[in-house]
Amino acid sequence: MKFEIKQETLIEHLNYVIKGISNKNIIPVLNCIKFELETDGLYLMSTDNEIAIKTFIPASDIEHIDKTGDIVVSGRFIYDIIKKLPNTIVSIEEVVDQKILITTTNSSFHLNCNRADEFPTLDLNENQKPVVISKKVFKNIIRQTAFATSSQESRPILTGINMKITNNILECTATDSYRLASKRVELESPLEEEINITIPTRNLNELMKLINEEEGEIELHIFNNKVIFKFESIVMMSRLLNGTYPDTSKLIPETYELTIQVKLNDLYAAIDRASLLTNESDKNTIKLESNGNIITISSNIPEIGNVEETIEVEKDNDHEIKIAFSSKYMIDALKSLESEEIVLLLNGEIKPIIIKNPESDDLTQLILPIRTY
Amino acid sequence: MKFEIKQETLIEHLNYVIKGISNKNIIPVLNCIKFELETDGLYLMSTDNEIAIKTFIPASDIEHIDKTGDIVVSGRFIYDIIKKLPNTIVSIEEVVDQKILITTTNSSFHLNCNRADEFPTLDLNENQKPVVISKKVFKNIIRQTAFATSSQESRPILTGINMKITNNILECTATDSYRLASKRVELESPLEEEINITIPTRNLNELMKLINEEEGEIELHIFNNKVIFKFESIVMMSRLLNGTYPDTSKLIPETYELTIQVKLNDLYAAIDRASLLTNESDKNTIKLESNGNIITISSNIPEIGNVEETIEVEKDNDHEIKIAFSSKYMIDALKSLESEEIVLLLNGEIKPIIIKNPESDDLTQLILPIRTY
Repeated sequence: MKFEIKQETLIEHLNYVIKGISNKNIIPVLNCIKFELETDGLYLMSTDNEIAIKTFIPASDIEHIDKTGDIVVSGRFIYDIIKKLPNTIVSIEEVVDQKILITTTNSSFHLNCNRADEFPTLDLNENQKPVVISKKVFKNIIRQTAFATSSQESRPILTGINMKITNNILECTATDSYRLASKRVELESPLEEEINITIPTRNLNELMKLINEEEGEIELHIFNNKVIFKFESIVMMSRLLNGTYPDTSKLIPETYELTIQVKLNDLYAAIDRASLLTNESDKNTIKLESNGNIITISSNIPEIGNVEETIEVEKDNDHEIKIAFSSKYMIDALKSLESEEIVLLLNGEIKPIIIKNPESDDLTQLILPIRTY
Repeated sequence: MKFEIKQETLIEHLNYVIKGISNKNIIPVLNCIKFELETDGLYLMSTDNEIAIKTFIPASDIEHIDKTGDIVVSGRFIYDIIKKLPNTIVSIEEVVDQKILITTTNSSFHLNCNRADEFPTLDLNENQKPVVISKKVFKNIIRQTAFATSSQESRPILTGINMKITNNILECTATDSYRLASKRVELESPLEEEINITIPTRNLNELMKLINEEEGEIELHIFNNKVIFKFESIVMMSRLLNGTYPDTSKLIPETYELTIQVKLNDLYAAIDRASLLTNESDKNTIKLESNGNIITISSNIPEIGNVEETIEVEKDNDHEIKIAFSSKYMIDALKSLESEEIVLLLNGEIKPIIIKNPESDDLTQLILPIRTY
C-alpha cells in the first residue's frame, strides 16, 4: 500500500472512524483502524463489536495512489499523528511487512501494524428497501427520546430506543419504567413490512456525533440482528437488542381530569430553581399544587431550607391538583419540548403526568408521580 | 439584616467569593459566605483557611438597605440560588435568628444560616507600602512560571512561587528540581526593604481566576506570614510558605558552548508530534541531535513505532550536540515564551538546557537533560 493525501482530507475521515473504537478493548485489533486502499479510493473501517463505522475517500480526493493494499493500524496513534501534522501532503506507505511509514517534508513516523486478516469481516452491504428520513428529523427524534432510556443493564431491552414502523408512521419510544418519551414521525413513503426493532441508545448517541450537517437524509437498512445507517460517505452498523419491547401504548390515557397550560420557560425556570433544594437520595422530589390560576412548585431539604415558586397558568376546569414528581425527570422532559406553551395532562396525584405541546401530538413525555401526599 | 439588590450585581460579587470556599471542608462554616451589611455597603467574605476573599458592593450599587447586620450562609446554596434567579431585584432578609428569606416576584427561598460569630476573624487590613504592579504583567508572571512548580508535598517550599524584590527588581522563580522558570520584572518604584517570600502556587492560580480585566494594577501587601492582594473591589489573602527557598541563582550558567536559534512554532510542532511516541513511564524522553544547520528530534515506543522530525536552525558555532529531555517539560517551557524565535543554550549532554527569547533576558526556562547517550 502506498498513497499520498492531503492531511485535512484524511483527518476529516479519521475523525469519523475513530469514534468506532474504544481504547479499553482488550482485543488489540478492535483498537485499530483498517485502511483498504483500492483503485477507486480509500476505505477506512473500525469496529468495537458493538458498532462498526466505515467511510470512503474517493480516488479523486486522494493526491496519488501508488499501490493498493490493506493495513490495520492502532487507531489512537494514527489519529493523533495525522491530527498533529501540518496541512500538507502526507505520504503513507507499507515499508516492510506490518510496518508503515508516514511522512511529510519534515516528519517521518514508523508505526507497527496488526495483521490485516485479524480484523473482523464486516458485512456492511445494504438491503433492498431502506427507511429514508431527513437527518434533522432523525437527530430530533434521538434528542427528544434518548434521555428517557434506562441505564440499568438489568432489563437490557430498556437500554435502547424502540422504533416501530406501520405503513408510513415511525414511532420511537424510550422508557426506564419511571418515565417515557414517545415521538411519532410521518415517513415520506410507506414501508410494506412492519418494523419493530430496538437500537442500543449508546450506539445512537455515537451516531449523533457522526452527523455533522443537518441537511440531507439518512438511510436505515434494517436486518434481523443489525441496522445499518448510511449518510454522506459514512456507513455505521449497530447491533439490535434482543427481546420484545414492552407494550407502552396503554400507558398514555385517553382522557384527563385536568389540563394545565403554562409557558415552558416559566415552568422550566421555576423547577430548575426548586431542584436546588432537592436530594438525589430523595429522588429529587418536588411538589406541584394548583390553586385557581396559580401553581406553586415547592421543595425542601430540612437541614438547608425550602423554596416556593409561583407561576400563572391556565386550567381547563376547576379541579385542583397536588402532585409530586422528580425535578430531574421533569427538567429532562421540558428540555425536549420546543413550543412556547406546554400542557400538563393530569388524572390525580397517583396517575402519570403527561407533558406535551398543546398544538401537537407528535411528542409525548410521561412521568410517574412520587407518592408523598 | 435586610436589603434589596439587583441579581446581576450580587452574582458578580458572589462569583468572586465562591472561589474562596472548598466544598470538601469538614468545618461547615468554611463552606459559607459571610454577608456583612453596613451603611456604606455590603461586604462578602469567604475563607478556607488557605486563602480568604473579600469583596465590597458600595451602597450606591444596592437598591435599598433597610437594616444592617451579618449573616453566614452556605456558599454553594446561596450562589446557585442567586445564579438561577432572573435578573430582577432580589430581596434578602434575616427573618428569624439564623434563617434568611430570599425573594423575587415569584420565588421565595428560606435558607438556614450559621452563627456569624463562628466565622473566622479575617485581618485583611493593608500595610503601609504595597508593591504595585500592572495586572497584565502580574498575570504573565504567573502564567510563565507556575507550571514549573512542584506538585510534591515532600518539599513544601517548592509548591510555591518565590518572589524576591531588591530595589526595583522583582524576580519570580518556580522549580520542581527538574526544571526551573524564572521571570524578572522591573517595578515602577523601588522598595526600601528587601522582600523574599514564597506564595503557594495553588493560591496564585485561584487569584488568576479572580482577575478578569487586564487593565489596571494589583497591590501586594506583604506581611510576615501572609500576602494580601488588592485590585478592583476585591481583597484576597494567601498564607505564605514557611522555609527558605533554595538559592537557584547559580543554576543558570554564564557561558554556553553552543547556542541554537530556532523558530518557536517549528520546534513546538516537532516536539508536540514527537511526544506522541513517548511514555510517561519513560519520563516522556525525546532526543535532540544537531548536524550542521539541521536538528533532528526523535523518540520511540518500541512496541508502537518511532518518529524523526527535522528542523532548520541557526547555530553560533560548529559544535554538535546530542541531548535527551522530557518532551512534556520542553512543551511547557515553549508555551511560556512569546517570541517568534527562541534560543536553546547548551553546555553538553549532561548540563542544563536554557530556553530563552534571544532578545530578552526577562524570562529564563531551564530543563535538566535526561542521561541516555
